[in-house]
Amino acid sequence: MDTLSLFEPIRRELEVVEEKLHQAAVAEHPRLEEILGYLLDSGGKRIRPALVILASKFHEHDVTKVLPLAAAVEMLHTATLVHDDVVDGSLLRRGNPTLNAKLSAGAVILVGDYVFARAADLAAATESVPVVDIFAKTLMTICRGEIQHAFEEDGWRRSKEDYYQNTYSKTASLFAASTEAGALLSGAPLSTVEALREYGRNLGMAFQIVDDILDFVGDEEEMGKPIGSDLRHGTVTLPLILHLEEHPQDDLRPSASEDTEEREEKIRTLVDLVRTSSAIESARAEAMRFTIDAKAAIEELPSNQYRQVMLDLADALLERRR
Amino acid sequence: MDTLSLFEPIRRELEVVEEKLHQAAVAEHPRLEEILGYLLDSGGKRIRPALVILASKFHEHDVTKVLPLAAAVEMLHTATLVHDDVVDGSLLRRGNPTLNAKLSAGAVILVGDYVFARAADLAAATESVPVVDIFAKTLMTICRGEIQHAFEEDGWRRSKEDYYQNTYSKTASLFAASTEAGALLSGAPLSTVEALREYGRNLGMAFQIVDDILDFVGDEEEMGKPIGSDLRHGTVTLPLILHLEEHPQDDLRPSASEDTEEREEKIRTLVDLVRTSSAIESARAEAMRFTIDAKAAIEELPSNQYRQVMLDLADALLERRR
Repeated sequence: MDTLSLFEPIRRELEVVEEKLHQAAVAEHPRLEEILGYLLDSGGKRIRPALVILASKFHEHDVTKVLPLAAAVEMLHTATLVHDDVVDGSLLRRGNPTLNAKLSAGAVILVGDYVFARAADLAAATESVPVVDIFAKTLMTICRGEIQHAFEEDGWRRSKEDYYQNTYSKTASLFAASTEAGALLSGAPLSTVEALREYGRNLGMAFQIVDDILDFVGDEEEMGKPIGSDLRHGTVTLPLILHLEEHPQDDLRPSASEDTEEREEKIRTLVDLVRTSSAIESARAEAMRFTIDAKAAIEELPSNQYRQVMLDLADALLERRR
Repeated sequence: MDTLSLFEPIRRELEVVEEKLHQAAVAEHPRLEEILGYLLDSGGKRIRPALVILASKFHEHDVTKVLPLAAAVEMLHTATLVHDDVVDGSLLRRGNPTLNAKLSAGAVILVGDYVFARAADLAAATESVPVVDIFAKTLMTICRGEIQHAFEEDGWRRSKEDYYQNTYSKTASLFAASTEAGALLSGAPLSTVEALREYGRNLGMAFQIVDDILDFVGDEEEMGKPIGSDLRHGTVTLPLILHLEEHPQDDLRPSASEDTEEREEKIRTLVDLVRTSSAIESARAEAMRFTIDAKAAIEELPSNQYRQVMLDLADALLERRR
């Protein structure tokens, strides 16, 4: 997906956000600074900051408050990835080694905490109490989702409902917070704020479903991580849920006694079954549904170039291959 | 130390804070709620919330903003303890098993993140941007200190200067933030805010030094954790630094080749050397110096019952045995 050309109308703002992120990575400790720089340059698509900026474009406003917010959401996103990777023990993300591969678990936890703190500091720079509040509540939602997932008694038998709830917590909540807070900071009327929040929420749902589909059918090299990593981490996502609805006999739930090799073999088989089944198309249809809802949510907004970017972005995220 | 009787003049406010903390522990997930309840009931002395309340008593103000802040600082403190314990691999704190002893590292990280988020949410409830800003900056200072410590190349050869810097980051910064933000929220004049911040900072320094002394000379049963745990975690504190200044030959720096039993034996020997040396008295003198400075900082404030509690608290923290 070529977000760069898509985001051309807000290129200047995104450059300032990039500067702000790198300023926020300046730390008294050289090793910490190096690590923060590494995290920020690890190939993030900057979709969330772009959402903040785009959502602020429906009302005249003071841009000096919106840009710290755009940087704050990217920092918050980065912090959650750092902790996720240590929780999952992942060694690769976007084709780059994660911090896990370089540092002790303790150091990774502390770096993640520091990035959270930086994010909170940037959120405070908006000088808006409602925005800080959205920010804190979103972080709570994200954590709650992760905890729910970690404590799931039988993650293997996850329902579609659980999946959607988790997808909201994990991804859509921050997309929604980005557009909501961006709109709020611009001083847009409540109906606009709500429309943009709905756009963000639906876009986030579609984005995560596509992510989960790509984990089955994507190209390992393009993705920068091995296929089937979700299953390998015990995370059951929509394609498998839909496949099992049709083929309950394929439930290859791993038993405690089997060894690593047996488990890996089972996962490979299951991934192959799912990637060639109709579940992939059904999951795509669900992602399409959320994309349509996202676009519908902003139908009534003024038809400016930023709304067009948002419509194009929804399509591009649906069609992306990594 | 009997903080209960000391805090009698603010007992009612502390009860409301306790309620707020337990309300904040209500979570949709029953297991999470149980864990949060456990954390909050693990014997914290609630010194930080008391500092917020006391510092707000030098100006007429709306108490509804101060109490969420008092709860927020305790939550933030709790979050840092949760992550510290997983970074250190500690199994006991205040005589109770830590979450590490009960949950996977991943689950503990996520619970800590959730507690951070709750803290940020409570801070936002103050509806004060400067307070949220102090809050975020303090979290950054705490993390930076931890990271510095984690990346220390030769922690064994820590200087007194490093120790003081780390003590500020780890403990005094949150004490200072508590009194500063409490005073700020009350609308007190800048000179009062600064005096109270200085009180908090010095009190925090003294508090941590006493903690570090108790890790050598305390009673294991009263402390609820084994003596010498700092050294066992590779943390060199003031008593050892002062001892090594006088007796450089006692540098029992553990070598990589030695086994666990040899290491434990060396640590026991070193703890015995320090606890019977004059370094303990010298460290006490330093704690005393910070206590005197803390009391001096609020000398000029109106002589009300709250100032008296703060003076008594400084003495009590110096004399405490756990």
